Amino acid sequence: MVGDIGGSKSEFAIFSSDDPATPLDFRRYANSGFNSAEEVMEKYLSQCSHSPQTACLAVAGVVEAERAQMTNLDWHFDACALAARFSFAKVVLINDMTALASSLPLLDRNHQLMTLNSGSGKQGAVCGLVAPGTGLGEGLFVRLGQNSFFALGSEGGHGGFSPADKEQLELLQWLQQKVSPVSWEMVASGRGIPALFAYYTQHCGMAPSGRITRELAGGDDQTRIIIDGGVTGDRCPVCARVVELFLAIVGSEAGNLALKLNATGGIYLGGGILPRLVGRTSFAPLVTAFGAKGKMTELVARIPLYLILEKKAVLMGGANFVTGGQRG
Amino acid sequence: MVGDIGGSKSEFAIFSSDDPATPLDFRRYANSGFNSAEEVMEKYLSQCSHSPQTACLAVAGVVEAERAQMTNLDWHFDACALAARFSFAKVVLINDMTALASSLPLLDRNHQLMTLNSGSGKQGAVCGLVAPGTGLGEGLFVRLGQNSFFALGSEGGHGGFSPADKEQLELLQWLQQKVSPVSWEMVASGRGIPALFAYYTQHCGMAPSGRITRELAGGDDQTRIIIDGGVTGDRCPVCARVVELFLAIVGSEAGNLALKLNATGGIYLGGGILPRLVGRTSFAPLVTAFGAKGKMTELVARIPLYLILEKKAVLMGGANFVTGGQRG
Repeated sequence: MVGDIGGSKSEFAIFSSDDPATPLDFRRYANSGFNSAEEVMEKYLSQCSHSPQTACLAVAGVVEAERAQMTNLDWHFDACALAARFSFAKVVLINDMTALASSLPLLDRNHQLMTLNSGSGKQGAVCGLVAPGTGLGEGLFVRLGQNSFFALGSEGGHGGFSPADKEQLELLQWLQQKVSPVSWEMVASGRGIPALFAYYTQHCGMAPSGRITRELAGGDDQTRIIIDGGVTGDRCPVCARVVELFLAIVGSEAGNLALKLNATGGIYLGGGILPRLVGRTSFAPLVTAFGAKGKMTELVARIPLYLILEKKAVLMGGANFVTGGQRG
Repeated sequence: MVGDIGGSKSEFAIFSSDDPATPLDFRRYANSGFNSAEEVMEKYLSQCSHSPQTACLAVAGVVEAERAQMTNLDWHFDACALAARFSFAKVVLINDMTALASSLPLLDRNHQLMTLNSGSGKQGAVCGLVAPGTGLGEGLFVRLGQNSFFALGSEGGHGGFSPADKEQLELLQWLQQKVSPVSWEMVASGRGIPALFAYYTQHCGMAPSGRITRELAGGDDQTRIIIDGGVTGDRCPVCARVVELFLAIVGSEAGNLALKLNATGGIYLGGGILPRLVGRTSFAPLVTAFGAKGKMTELVARIPLYLILEKKAVLMGGANFVTGGQRG
């Protein structure tokens, strides 16, 4: 059994030990209906018709050996306690970005990935992961042999934001007056979208459309309203600028990670925001910013850039992590 | 035989296959006396009293499989041609930062490293490398088992510079008028030192001491003059500010790499500039900037930070790379 425990929802799947790419069963639950990780696991195990021996829980939070603590929810995990309670032979706790990185070798280029830059990268070299969701997850993946790899989620999104041009520098200057240091996550994640919107409206004095102003006044999910407002047929000019700037910043950081990791295997974009933009807006600002690295432009241009479309990638990666030969 | 082929000098050493930590022989040559990598290798092999079977050349430049091209010198390397010419059974070409990263498990904490932040990091986890020399090298190291590791030099220094405070933002703004994007290497390397000096004198209107002004007018190595001017007893106020800013920027990037790699094994500082500052100035600006990561400050504070003092680390790393179990 593999669980993907996010800030607002939990997903579970069952895999046989010889095929981490094909879930035999899958269910999703809103966390709001449960008080603890144990409760939602109990619910799933009572509803699925399998009796799994091993559990891997991919947790959106800090994982240290046998314990984990979620970043945005008061849920704790203790591998030994969970194994005892549910009679698992083994419970493995990993960071959700470690799980996502572990899914990379399983993803089919034609169906589960969208190629944004084809490059000429080497198969099997180091890969990087940049995943804007609620926060900004990052990670790395190294193939060591046919059935052996090293995958690791990181807190790279909390590193310092580097503005790529004058507009981004002005944005940083404006944000620095409120908070310092300014991280990539503050501008390149679901949390960052309202900050970009505020920059254009409050600092630059741009006016959003009347519809967006009304929706933001009444709605809950500001991030979703702004993103949808920037890509639907009847676009709000400010929201469209926000989406474009967001894409440019994500692309710039993807290029930075490509350089940091010498990621000749490719950079993979994950998270919930980008797949929702497919077919609704151009990814050109992202791809352009990815390659704009001065004298390293040619080197980065050779690095493939993929967008992960597969929604169960974290679950598949969790299965691959426990069965597929994570080392180190 | 291991060679460390830098922009201005080449160093060679002989190691026995069972001890990559102890060079049996060592010589250094100024590249200016030679026209090619073959010439300097020929010289060394004629002078040393060993007949090595395997050669590993650590090259300051781009290495792709069997060939390498130096960044700052018109020297080319072809592994097969070198093996044939010198009758080596095997010639391995690696990037010099890959070699330096490969030395990390060999370095003795008491004699070859200086601890700048002790942290409470896990032994054997991922390590990162930040090495300001002429350029800014970076790299990563993952221990996979007792005798197995993955080491990789990267072009991370060419990623975008992220200013950590108002002064650094002003610096970026000033530099962006001349070149864009501004990379870490442009401010945190030997090449960057004159740029920081120009920022203080040209943009901020600060006046260097008369001695420094005279030395800069007459001398060749501006970087060395500025660094020495900032740390000697009779300090030039501008040079002292340059050294302090340089240390803060290197520390900030070291903290970023710690987050990107989740480098619980530690961040190692290498390169030629920092060891020359030991005992002559305080590393406090570097250590403070390393940890100043907003809500990730506590996480970074747990990551050990070391300065590599061992001058033969690249040679030792080259020997470890070929004998010590690099995988992947």
